[in-house]
Amino acid sequence: MDIKQQVGANIAKIRREQNISQEELAFRSGLHRTYISGVERGVRNPTITVLSEIATALKVSIADLVC
Amino acid sequence: MDIKQQVGANIAKIRREQNISQEELAFRSGLHRTYISGVERGVRNPTITVLSEIATALKVSIADLVC
Repeated sequence: MDIKQQVGANIAKIRREQNISQEELAFRSGLHRTYISGVERGVRNPTITVLSEIATALKVSIADLVC
Repeated sequence: MDIKQQVGANIAKIRREQNISQEELAFRSGLHRTYISGVERGVRNPTITVLSEIATALKVSIADLVC
């Protein structure tokens, strides 16, 4: 599993634990749903600012997304 | 301080603690020295794969770079 896949799996896991849909996460983070889907599948290469927006939307730290 | 500046400051701090030059970090991470300089100054927006390469080069975790 490369780092993109690892981060994607972390985001999906945290999102599901919070019972949030990809649509809701997209809305909260100001990103497009298809982009969120791509990040979760590990096919996107998110920047630190995108990770910061997703972490804020999920109310977790960026470290939680990259561990 | 935004997240790019925070990550840049973390990288510069860790690099200096290890007495590594930007040139050496660039060589180890396979990135250009001017790009490393830009990341450390917070004017670049590194992706998760770039952060992974820098973390590996510094022998720290990505979480160490984003905290």
